[in-house]
Amino acid sequence: MNNNFSFSLQDCDGSARLGVINTAHGQIKTPAFMPVGTSATVKVIKNIDILNSGADIILGNTYHLMLRPGAELIEKAGGLHKFMGWNKPILTDSGGFQVMSLSNIRKINDEGVEFSSHIDGTKYFVTPEKSISIQYQLGSTITMAFDECIAFPATYEDSKKAMIRSFEWAYRSKNNFVTRNGYGLFGIVQGGVYRELREESAKKLIEIGFDGYAIGGLAVGEGQEIMFEVLDYLPAILPKDKPRYLMGVGKPSDIVGAVSRGVDMFDCVIPTRSGRTGQAFTSRGAVNIRNAKYRDDFSPLESDCKCYACVNHSMAYLHHLAKSNEILASMLLSEHNIFYYQKLMSDIRYHISKKTFTSFAKSFIADDIADESC
Amino acid sequence: MNNNFSFSLQDCDGSARLGVINTAHGQIKTPAFMPVGTSATVKVIKNIDILNSGADIILGNTYHLMLRPGAELIEKAGGLHKFMGWNKPILTDSGGFQVMSLSNIRKINDEGVEFSSHIDGTKYFVTPEKSISIQYQLGSTITMAFDECIAFPATYEDSKKAMIRSFEWAYRSKNNFVTRNGYGLFGIVQGGVYRELREESAKKLIEIGFDGYAIGGLAVGEGQEIMFEVLDYLPAILPKDKPRYLMGVGKPSDIVGAVSRGVDMFDCVIPTRSGRTGQAFTSRGAVNIRNAKYRDDFSPLESDCKCYACVNHSMAYLHHLAKSNEILASMLLSEHNIFYYQKLMSDIRYHISKKTFTSFAKSFIADDIADESC
Repeated sequence: MNNNFSFSLQDCDGSARLGVINTAHGQIKTPAFMPVGTSATVKVIKNIDILNSGADIILGNTYHLMLRPGAELIEKAGGLHKFMGWNKPILTDSGGFQVMSLSNIRKINDEGVEFSSHIDGTKYFVTPEKSISIQYQLGSTITMAFDECIAFPATYEDSKKAMIRSFEWAYRSKNNFVTRNGYGLFGIVQGGVYRELREESAKKLIEIGFDGYAIGGLAVGEGQEIMFEVLDYLPAILPKDKPRYLMGVGKPSDIVGAVSRGVDMFDCVIPTRSGRTGQAFTSRGAVNIRNAKYRDDFSPLESDCKCYACVNHSMAYLHHLAKSNEILASMLLSEHNIFYYQKLMSDIRYHISKKTFTSFAKSFIADDIADESC
Repeated sequence: MNNNFSFSLQDCDGSARLGVINTAHGQIKTPAFMPVGTSATVKVIKNIDILNSGADIILGNTYHLMLRPGAELIEKAGGLHKFMGWNKPILTDSGGFQVMSLSNIRKINDEGVEFSSHIDGTKYFVTPEKSISIQYQLGSTITMAFDECIAFPATYEDSKKAMIRSFEWAYRSKNNFVTRNGYGLFGIVQGGVYRELREESAKKLIEIGFDGYAIGGLAVGEGQEIMFEVLDYLPAILPKDKPRYLMGVGKPSDIVGAVSRGVDMFDCVIPTRSGRTGQAFTSRGAVNIRNAKYRDDFSPLESDCKCYACVNHSMAYLHHLAKSNEILASMLLSEHNIFYYQKLMSDIRYHISKKTFTSFAKSFIADDIADESC
């Protein structure tokens, strides 16, 4: 629908896909992982280090940004890219998920959602039209349709109602989306864990037509097995020539398993949130750097990792920083985890291109037994 | 006393001195400001950014390091330089000041100080010999003699007692110091605000002979005027061919005023601590970035500053981060403040070399009216 926003599928290995999304702010190599920059910052990391990790795109949260500093201020700054100093693509969620999970909802009906801010209690009324126009003010490279997210577990009836409302909101989102070259709009498939609802949701969204299709309402507590059951059929019924985005996912093995089922894009707070609590991802599994066994381990977290911490510091030093509650521990581990995730995506893309992804995925998931909880 | 540890006085302008300290870990251009790296990290800044700010040397705290992670572990790592990944000079204080200000002192006598850790209550007994041997384990480029710091205000009698004890401890510090090429030992002049005591302390320390002379017991609440009164006579009675270090100082105008009185080295937590509370130093005075007037100020903090924040971000963005309690605000402001301090030292050195320091200092101190409290 937008001339310069396009997805080019370059290769496949089984259901895993290698591609490139072309946008007004540059290319996104897929499968892609988007670090989460909730409030116009990927927490505790400078943009330069996100760039160096290899990330092509980050995610911003419409809900947080509309509350603080406000869409008008960001528009006045010249958009979110200029405001936060990030020149590559930005995807913004629509606010639907955070409205449901963070705010105090006053009223929800077919028109939209009335809620009060979790920060200062200010009242807001957000409709699909409002969400899309805020994302326009932000200048999002990829705008997400406004949807209704319900908690897990949900009955068939509740899932159906939310799916139908989300579809109607997707329709209104599309109608209010102002096309600009190189900017895209994604629809969000809902329907909980019910195949019939998921299929109906996908079919209706495809009829409307979007630049990409997201899978919402997973990674909300159902567990990897049930999530993979949905992914066993859902990506296959989405258009081949559009990117598929699994929202809010996930752990490394979730990502590998979802890629093997045909998903192209991911976002998750796990690498940064884990970094702030002393958790590090490594090829040996997850590491809790506060563990006493690292006190005098003078080797790096990961010997072939190119992140600042692995090049310059030992696990013993990171252990000391974490035990001393030094913020530098959060800085170094968050950055390391973002590097780990981007390296994982790069490895995934490499193996798809070499047609070795299936065996890579199999051994990756089999090996996914963390040595320490993360 | 150590072949390769030397101070070369290159130029003077009035009492202000331009020099270079040669050490085993490289040169230190003076006047020098040492960022404080209490627990083996300058808080919330990576070493690479300290380096980029132009700092030649940082300070570590013996008291904190002996408590956590412990001198033995750092020695096992190959010393503090290797442990924290900083290859340029490190000065460590002797622990005297922190023992008095942070720990729970059980007993203090001529032998040393018995205290319990403020972290976990563990009992320690530190003597001058112990402090020097810990600093040896740390591999400090510049070791500080162990001294007794008393609170301000202090009577003449108390100041005299502490000065005499500090002198005796300085003697024992020197006796226990193991000389290594390019490593130095500094004595600390005490005596409170009493000229007679200060002169006696200086004279006795010079008789022992040190690689540099520190001025302790100032910046403890006496105010700039009284501090400058001491500095009006004290640096002049210290050896010309050794560096003079004013401990724990200070605000920019304190530094400029002390340099004009013949001081060569400084350390202070102000730039980093201020950064963590939303305060920034600029040529226009101190800025509280949380102030509402910066909400939509899209200019940088300081247009000719080379720090990451000033090159990449606006005050409006920094304001947003600080108001949102994002750690990135602390990261960017701490780094900016360290850049500001190093730029100040660089300007000071430039003006001494050009014999324009006196007028620079005069206008700098006259202009030192912060627009917002810092």
